[in-house]
Amino acid sequence: MRAMALVTPETSEELRLIVDLCNNLGQTIIVQGGLTGAVEGQYPCLNDLVISTEKMNKILSTNTFEKTMVVEAGCTLEQIQQAARDKGLLFALDIGARGSCTIGGNIATNAGGMEVIRYGMMRDQVLGLEAVLADGTLLSSLNRLQKNNAGYDLKHLLIGTEGTIGIVTKAVLKLRPQPSHQQTALLGCETFQQVETILDRAQASLGESLNRFELLSRAYYQGQMSFGDHDQPMAANFNWYVLMEYAGNQPDAMQDWLEDVLSTGMAEDIVVASNQKQERALWSIRDHFEGITSRKLFFNYDISLPITAMEQYLLDLESTIKTRWPDSEFYSFGHMGDGNLHLFIMPGIDDKSLKDVANDMVYRPLGDVGGSVSAEHGIGLEKKSWLGICRNSTEIEVMKRLKGLFDPNHILNPGRIFDIQPE
Amino acid sequence: MRAMALVTPETSEELRLIVDLCNNLGQTIIVQGGLTGAVEGQYPCLNDLVISTEKMNKILSTNTFEKTMVVEAGCTLEQIQQAARDKGLLFALDIGARGSCTIGGNIATNAGGMEVIRYGMMRDQVLGLEAVLADGTLLSSLNRLQKNNAGYDLKHLLIGTEGTIGIVTKAVLKLRPQPSHQQTALLGCETFQQVETILDRAQASLGESLNRFELLSRAYYQGQMSFGDHDQPMAANFNWYVLMEYAGNQPDAMQDWLEDVLSTGMAEDIVVASNQKQERALWSIRDHFEGITSRKLFFNYDISLPITAMEQYLLDLESTIKTRWPDSEFYSFGHMGDGNLHLFIMPGIDDKSLKDVANDMVYRPLGDVGGSVSAEHGIGLEKKSWLGICRNSTEIEVMKRLKGLFDPNHILNPGRIFDIQPE
Repeated sequence: MRAMALVTPETSEELRLIVDLCNNLGQTIIVQGGLTGAVEGQYPCLNDLVISTEKMNKILSTNTFEKTMVVEAGCTLEQIQQAARDKGLLFALDIGARGSCTIGGNIATNAGGMEVIRYGMMRDQVLGLEAVLADGTLLSSLNRLQKNNAGYDLKHLLIGTEGTIGIVTKAVLKLRPQPSHQQTALLGCETFQQVETILDRAQASLGESLNRFELLSRAYYQGQMSFGDHDQPMAANFNWYVLMEYAGNQPDAMQDWLEDVLSTGMAEDIVVASNQKQERALWSIRDHFEGITSRKLFFNYDISLPITAMEQYLLDLESTIKTRWPDSEFYSFGHMGDGNLHLFIMPGIDDKSLKDVANDMVYRPLGDVGGSVSAEHGIGLEKKSWLGICRNSTEIEVMKRLKGLFDPNHILNPGRIFDIQPE
Repeated sequence: MRAMALVTPETSEELRLIVDLCNNLGQTIIVQGGLTGAVEGQYPCLNDLVISTEKMNKILSTNTFEKTMVVEAGCTLEQIQQAARDKGLLFALDIGARGSCTIGGNIATNAGGMEVIRYGMMRDQVLGLEAVLADGTLLSSLNRLQKNNAGYDLKHLLIGTEGTIGIVTKAVLKLRPQPSHQQTALLGCETFQQVETILDRAQASLGESLNRFELLSRAYYQGQMSFGDHDQPMAANFNWYVLMEYAGNQPDAMQDWLEDVLSTGMAEDIVVASNQKQERALWSIRDHFEGITSRKLFFNYDISLPITAMEQYLLDLESTIKTRWPDSEFYSFGHMGDGNLHLFIMPGIDDKSLKDVANDMVYRPLGDVGGSVSAEHGIGLEKKSWLGICRNSTEIEVMKRLKGLFDPNHILNPGRIFDIQPE
């Protein structure tokens, strides 16, 4: 990545002065956190100034009774998770990039991850923010209260707007009690209907203690067994696999529930991790897919859609892919409990320019079922030509009005999410 | 309440046409739902047109698997709660005005209530919205997905902005599984430290199944016993009373935990409701305070502050009140688990103009402890001169920028939250 220059302010005021200067000069800015974004939002052009928050990386305070933590934007997610654990508490966002990604980036992109089904997305972990707006205004809105209904809640201008309105410099985060027991199980199912039933009953029986609910397709599971470095915990001939985690204070809740699952035929087979090593091995099947992806060119997707439309969508998509590319491979998995899937499409032809064709296959049918081209990664540069699949023209026009209000000179993360000038 | 006229549109398009016309004419509009707002936001002036959503009161669809419900803005909260119950699900917002208040009003004011400690405020119950903006734009953003990170999340422009940016016409609501067991307990404590410990340990042990956590001061409990129509469940000489509810799927979880509370001296006495009648009787002590308030002029407050600052704040405030008005009475109670208290101040003198003095006593010290003049009621007309206690001038300026962008002619709920022109 090349840019005009890189600056690394150490304080909010330094950052504010830089933005203010850029705004006066019409100098475009690209904001960078941990460079782990998945939609090219962090990529500068040659004429852009890059502002990195890497030197704003201090945890400023933790209040264990209030369950709040005040942090600078450049703290990594893992640093925050560890600081919470050190106090016996939980910071309830977790994504694979935890070691590099910054909380500022998590906020700007409204990051998701494994435990959204219980705790919500990044938006739900934020109580207050400080940010520098595109015109150089320092907006300090560091609310620490659980309830504060005094006027507009301005943090939502910054969360999930991908740095197009302002740059987050500090945040007040919400911490949670750490559940005392957790248990992981892998379930094998013949039909998607079984998976739906398991999800519905798990939510009813386990309530919020249903901490994770992930789906692995047969192809993904088989691919992991064939190409990855994983022990095989269960036969590889089921059509769907559910990997789920209980986290709560009742040692027997998950076991009781799983017995019910097996006895009522909701699943064909169940494997329960009986120690932490087994737990890690099961989650590794979900998380470490380098064995699959390192072999060939692949395109990676993050979509959401109504769960009831999921099976047909996947069948149709697979059929489209196989028809177009007979040597293709197609893997689906992800946060099914939230209606969110990740897809790997390997055309079987080593040609990156096929991405546009694959995009069309994946995104176009989402419009018909009320899905989204981005469940959790954001839009960035990569998906902006597909935004119209899941947002109507009025919604996009209102987004542009907001952008124009706070960044009239179009200096901040220009071209991310949408272009202001008609293309 | 008198106004220029009252209109009751039956469709979003009718409502849009009215707003569009008013915007072109510069005609001011006051939006009304169930008229239960607590901060005078619904009060028109003689020159205002009143738009009521009362005829837009249909539940449009319910999806029990997705756990979503699509409703028109004029539906009452109780109508929605009942429709969810009829499908075996829970709509997780509950406030005393449930029979009259409308969901549109709940959204506009970001209503709170009894179960915020578990489920969050109204904001957390909304997946998507349709609204008519002040300039007559119909913004349809009826997202039904749990995760949709495609551009700005525009619903937050409407939630909690008290109808100053647009009028909510429809909403997609999030429903929840209904927990199978619930249990209510009243706990008597000598010290506020005991109350804090109970809250902290209840959150750690019961997790999200801690459904309600309410505090009653000694004066409030004694007042209820003296002036209200309530059976006395426990001695009236404790300094603090905690009324809490468990709702989950473990029949013994609350009982086990309460035994721990008693054995470790966290509480002096505990009464557990053993049937629904007893449950209702205990909650009636919290909710039905007409016995206290019907006797004398009283001023009613809704504040939030850090829980660790709560005891000293209440002691200081009581002292201020008693010094100024020797015949005064002071009652505090409310959603202590969220840092939210309601206060009744009776000066003991039948003079409504004393409200300004009482406001000053209640609000001014909140600034020093990082509290808010509105935990859940909003600002409306009533509290706008106190907004500066808990929002800084930059925050208020940014709110006004947003208002100016979407309502340049200042026609919609003018003067609510803040005045656009300097006073």
